[in-house]
Amino acid sequence: MECIKIKTSKRNELIDITSEIQAIVSKSKIKEGICVVYCPHTTAGITINENADPDVKSDILNRLGAIVPENENYSHSEGNSDAHIKSALIGNNQTLIVSDGKLQLGSWGGIFFSEFDGPRQRQVLVQLIKQ
Amino acid sequence: MECIKIKTSKRNELIDITSEIQAIVSKSKIKEGICVVYCPHTTAGITINENADPDVKSDILNRLGAIVPENENYSHSEGNSDAHIKSALIGNNQTLIVSDGKLQLGSWGGIFFSEFDGPRQRQVLVQLIKQ
Amino acid sequence: MECIKIKTSKRNELIDITSEIQAIVSKSKIKEGICVVYCPHTTAGITINENADPDVKSDILNRLGAIVPENENYSHSEGNSDAHIKSALIGNNQTLIVSDGKLQLGSWGGIFFSEFDGPRQRQVLVQLIKQ
Repeated sequence: MECIKIKTSKRNELIDITSEIQAIVSKSKIKEGICVVYCPHTTAGITINENADPDVKSDILNRLGAIVPENENYSHSEGNSDAHIKSALIGNNQTLIVSDGKLQLGSWGGIFFSEFDGPRQRQVLVQLIKQ
Repeated sequence: MECIKIKTSKRNELIDITSEIQAIVSKSKIKEGICVVYCPHTTAGITINENADPDVKSDILNRLGAIVPENENYSHSEGNSDAHIKSALIGNNQTLIVSDGKLQLGSWGGIFFSEFDGPRQRQVLVQLIKQ
Repeated sequence: MECIKIKTSKRNELIDITSEIQAIVSKSKIKEGICVVYCPHTTAGITINENADPDVKSDILNRLGAIVPENENYSHSEGNSDAHIKSALIGNNQTLIVSDGKLQLGSWGGIFFSEFDGPRQRQVLVQLIKQ
């Protein structure tokens, strides 16, 4: 298992970690298999989406904020229930396909660490499985 | 493949199944690999979130209920369309990382069977893959 | 890795691809393992839900459209931000369990390609891992 360290700078933020994950795949020399990207935090997650136009990131974060408002008479006393709920909706893990030694992300796909309760020091765990 | 049986007691309920899943991992003696947790029902799901403060569970369920109301002029005649939609949003499967013989859940992560149309008898399927 | 080609016909559409995925599993002769189904597009996804009553599909799509409206002052200039956000919520990959040579979907589970910005030519990638 590999571990990537991330420093987030905002409360809500999508950070592209595609190159770090591909570097782990390349180092492993695995040609065919899968790659599990896992966020071991319950107020953040992992999502896959367009890595070309940064407006896509802000549209995703803004709409998530409308679906799950920050203040909504939540019971959890830490004041970050919205972050827990966003994590549940987006997911804290994604499974990618490795073929020909490369993550098969399509033309526009990027892997994003999804911070919902930053800024914080975070980790991402990566496990590769050979076919 | 292993199968866990669960009896739910409410229409909407998050049930912590972390210890049952870890027991399957421990029995397998796999040190490095992944663990797929799969809900073979279309009105329930699997989610990963905080297992410390039970208020987090109720905040997640309450907000899901606001996003997907129980009664909303749905077409499906069985009266549980909200449960199908919640299952699609939360997901019916999660892939966890096993390292050093343990599920790598972080400090607060728990695995929850997510009932959206209970009470019912349910199953959870578990498949382990060695690295 | 296998690749399935799909032609969608509407802007929002769920297309059952269960039989195509099971055919790939059967051809592989794998008895125990997992099957990763991956959508390499950022305005579509993969979801698992009921494949019996088609009203479930329309209820899911209609509610998703209410949660993520098509026109909402998004920043992304291509006019398909709703599709990117729906993809992030539904997910672009699902991991299924193969046991006894069959996808373990339960009584009503089907695998659906989830189009949110059609009609388009699309692909689905499939990677099998033997236990």
